[in-house]
Amino acid sequence: MRNLSMLTDFYQLTMANGYYLEGRADREAIFDVFFRQNKGMNYAVVAGLEQAVDYLLNLNFTEDDIDYLRDQKCFDEGFLDYLRKFKFTGDVTAVKEGTVAFPMEPLLTVKAPLAQAQIVETALLTIINHQTLIASKAARVKTAAGNTSVLEFGLRRAQGPDAGIYGTRATIIGGCDATSNVYAAKEFGIPASGTHSHSWVMSFENELTAFREYARLYPNNCMLLVDTFDTIKSGVPNAITVFNELKAKGLSPTGIRLDSGDLAYLSKLSRKMLDNAGFPDVKICVSSDLDEYLIQSLITQGAKIDIWGVGTKLITSYDMPALGGVYKMAAIEENGALVPKIKISDNLIKITNPGYKSVYRIYDKESNKAIADLIGLRGEVFDTEKLTIFHPVETWKETTLTNFYVKELHSEIIRRGKLVYDLPKFSDICKFAKEERETFWEEYKRLEYPQEYKVDLSKELFDLKTEMLKNFRLN
Amino acid sequence: MRNLSMLTDFYQLTMANGYYLEGRADREAIFDVFFRQNKGMNYAVVAGLEQAVDYLLNLNFTEDDIDYLRDQKCFDEGFLDYLRKFKFTGDVTAVKEGTVAFPMEPLLTVKAPLAQAQIVETALLTIINHQTLIASKAARVKTAAGNTSVLEFGLRRAQGPDAGIYGTRATIIGGCDATSNVYAAKEFGIPASGTHSHSWVMSFENELTAFREYARLYPNNCMLLVDTFDTIKSGVPNAITVFNELKAKGLSPTGIRLDSGDLAYLSKLSRKMLDNAGFPDVKICVSSDLDEYLIQSLITQGAKIDIWGVGTKLITSYDMPALGGVYKMAAIEENGALVPKIKISDNLIKITNPGYKSVYRIYDKESNKAIADLIGLRGEVFDTEKLTIFHPVETWKETTLTNFYVKELHSEIIRRGKLVYDLPKFSDICKFAKEERETFWEEYKRLEYPQEYKVDLSKELFDLKTEMLKNFRLN
Repeated sequence: MRNLSMLTDFYQLTMANGYYLEGRADREAIFDVFFRQNKGMNYAVVAGLEQAVDYLLNLNFTEDDIDYLRDQKCFDEGFLDYLRKFKFTGDVTAVKEGTVAFPMEPLLTVKAPLAQAQIVETALLTIINHQTLIASKAARVKTAAGNTSVLEFGLRRAQGPDAGIYGTRATIIGGCDATSNVYAAKEFGIPASGTHSHSWVMSFENELTAFREYARLYPNNCMLLVDTFDTIKSGVPNAITVFNELKAKGLSPTGIRLDSGDLAYLSKLSRKMLDNAGFPDVKICVSSDLDEYLIQSLITQGAKIDIWGVGTKLITSYDMPALGGVYKMAAIEENGALVPKIKISDNLIKITNPGYKSVYRIYDKESNKAIADLIGLRGEVFDTEKLTIFHPVETWKETTLTNFYVKELHSEIIRRGKLVYDLPKFSDICKFAKEERETFWEEYKRLEYPQEYKVDLSKELFDLKTEMLKNFRLN
Repeated sequence: MRNLSMLTDFYQLTMANGYYLEGRADREAIFDVFFRQNKGMNYAVVAGLEQAVDYLLNLNFTEDDIDYLRDQKCFDEGFLDYLRKFKFTGDVTAVKEGTVAFPMEPLLTVKAPLAQAQIVETALLTIINHQTLIASKAARVKTAAGNTSVLEFGLRRAQGPDAGIYGTRATIIGGCDATSNVYAAKEFGIPASGTHSHSWVMSFENELTAFREYARLYPNNCMLLVDTFDTIKSGVPNAITVFNELKAKGLSPTGIRLDSGDLAYLSKLSRKMLDNAGFPDVKICVSSDLDEYLIQSLITQGAKIDIWGVGTKLITSYDMPALGGVYKMAAIEENGALVPKIKISDNLIKITNPGYKSVYRIYDKESNKAIADLIGLRGEVFDTEKLTIFHPVETWKETTLTNFYVKELHSEIIRRGKLVYDLPKFSDICKFAKEERETFWEEYKRLEYPQEYKVDLSKELFDLKTEMLKNFRLN
């Protein structure tokens, strides 16, 4: 792993230098990572924890880094020495990778000496914002595709190598089936996928020769790209010729890929041509600026598509390319005790939740489906027989639940700088993510006008917050 | 530098394996990197060449990579041995980093043995698409900001670490003045910038104490964030108190930062309060989901803003998060000679330009401003006295130029696998980029309804393309 210790904002270091000089660097502080809204998405699929943990455990400023900072002429020599010996010694709790999460819920909570907690803010946000964004987008794409396969094809349009590598990781957590990205496939053990491009066809004297040669080389995985010249007049007929030649040898051709044009029309016509030629099992794969809406629309139009190759729109989360997750102080040690902190704003959504918190998910005992989440204080005990939850703003809206059970979503990840969590294998993360999504009714996951999932505050947290807001107004 | 050799699409390797087995791997081929359109942007600022060169010169598949590929059970052992010894031995020409470029213009051209040219496609696109996208966005933001400063603040919202590191690099090439990203600042020698966040204020018992302590620690760079509680009632008055204390010690306070609320109203009122308190030189810095349109709007509204901190919308190019650059075959060796190739499509914009090309820019001799570009064949000689250029589609639209000079935009970068280009220092790239943008009239660079810059085909290229299209239709 690269040394990402310097991947922070300059103000984190000027503040940490300040805390150091004030003798406040080692006061315990609590910060939460959360997002305020997820435009166009009802829920998020959390990803990036493994890389966030790697970052925290490997923090190490080099002499070269120290020299660079000294040259900035604003850091105390004692602070530079503090950085030279810097290790993350705090606690981290977080929701597991693949967890379905909602606005305002702490995804990851850092409890650490103030200067440490401050310095790690930026990289934690970079990592978790990015992977959670892409995993969430992938979950939507997969929702649209239903039981058909989704391949991630976007590396060339990713925002740099990491966006390709970790973006791909996130798409698989979000539910995609395979990737074209060889680096990510090897790194994470994801199935690699891909056959040939237009340039393969163009490098031969004609399309039929190109197809024939491809079939000769890959007789057991013969997926042919049919739109280099003319899909219906040339591509599909040439593919059928080659498929017949494969069949004559007792082999089963794999499929065709359409990469341009009207995919509804072309897939239906190609399907008919393939069926009529005796190839009902040959798959049709399409690619071409697909996203969840286009997939949904093509399915609604009766397009005959078995495999979706999704690139640019997925790997960049094109319609919302940043999650906007934030990292806010929830408490700080004053005179030896942790004092809750709140960030006030005229903008309701920008008021933070104070205190050392966790997230509790309430499940219906009969269906095992999630009913509601509670953001509560750590260690809160809930009545397991009868629980009244209420809307955090429109407080008259309340519901009393029976026949339910509660799960705390945060796990202990790092304790006093040491990993205490058994980081799951990547395939287990993906399996867990799939099971997680299945605990939510389809109504919460549909693309348009999803039912809003209830995320309320526990009574204790609500009272604390109300009290703090009241005191603030009085001062 | 990390080993990015595996950062490719799986089909590049299956195709290369095919070329190898067909005995075609070493045929010379020519591929161009270009973009077809730049939605919402009239021009692009090209960036990423240095990282693309690093990638090409350091290509090296490890034994571990070879073992992984063998496990995929679709690669020939001879091909795996070919990969084991793989080096890029081709030629690369490209426009310099910082060059202003337009749709369809080759930004980088690879002339290399076919299998090599194929394998490097994906990473070249990932690198150049990303950095060019962000540099272009930055140029627009800087255009909107005019003579005021733009700081890049987006790391926490970048699509992973590289998107932050290389994205920041690109924003500076595009014209930004400084960054908050310490990693990028150190790596590329960019000025680092930043003071404190809301958590600094929240970690003290009150705002005034927080400001006072900050001023004590950073008396010469005292920029205070004034919106933690209430900008006008609390933040600005407390800042003025502290500024007066600095003044009494003979020091000059730096500025205030607004990070929320109505920035037009708040900046005007804050300016008045600061002026009335005797601080006309204290700067006002704003941040809060800024982009080029919001900056333009705030300036139009008479907002009193000296420094813009631009984050999410810049580092992700929020309204267009992918450039969509492609890599298309332009020629291939057949029987020892390079034969031009064309990709046909019903979609006019998807028809490629054949042959080994370069880009020629025509400047007015008097103003030294760019008048038009010509995409032409390599080595074409143009009449330097009188040149008739014509629209590549609406061919009756023609203009005859006099009093001009022509510059070829491609430089030779790599020859037979060896670097033959003197990679410029980062500061020189930024200086060149600024000069480049100044050779274009403002009319081409304005945000809304920019004048379309002429990019025509040379007569030779036009004739070649027309001939190839005609032959294709006849076949």
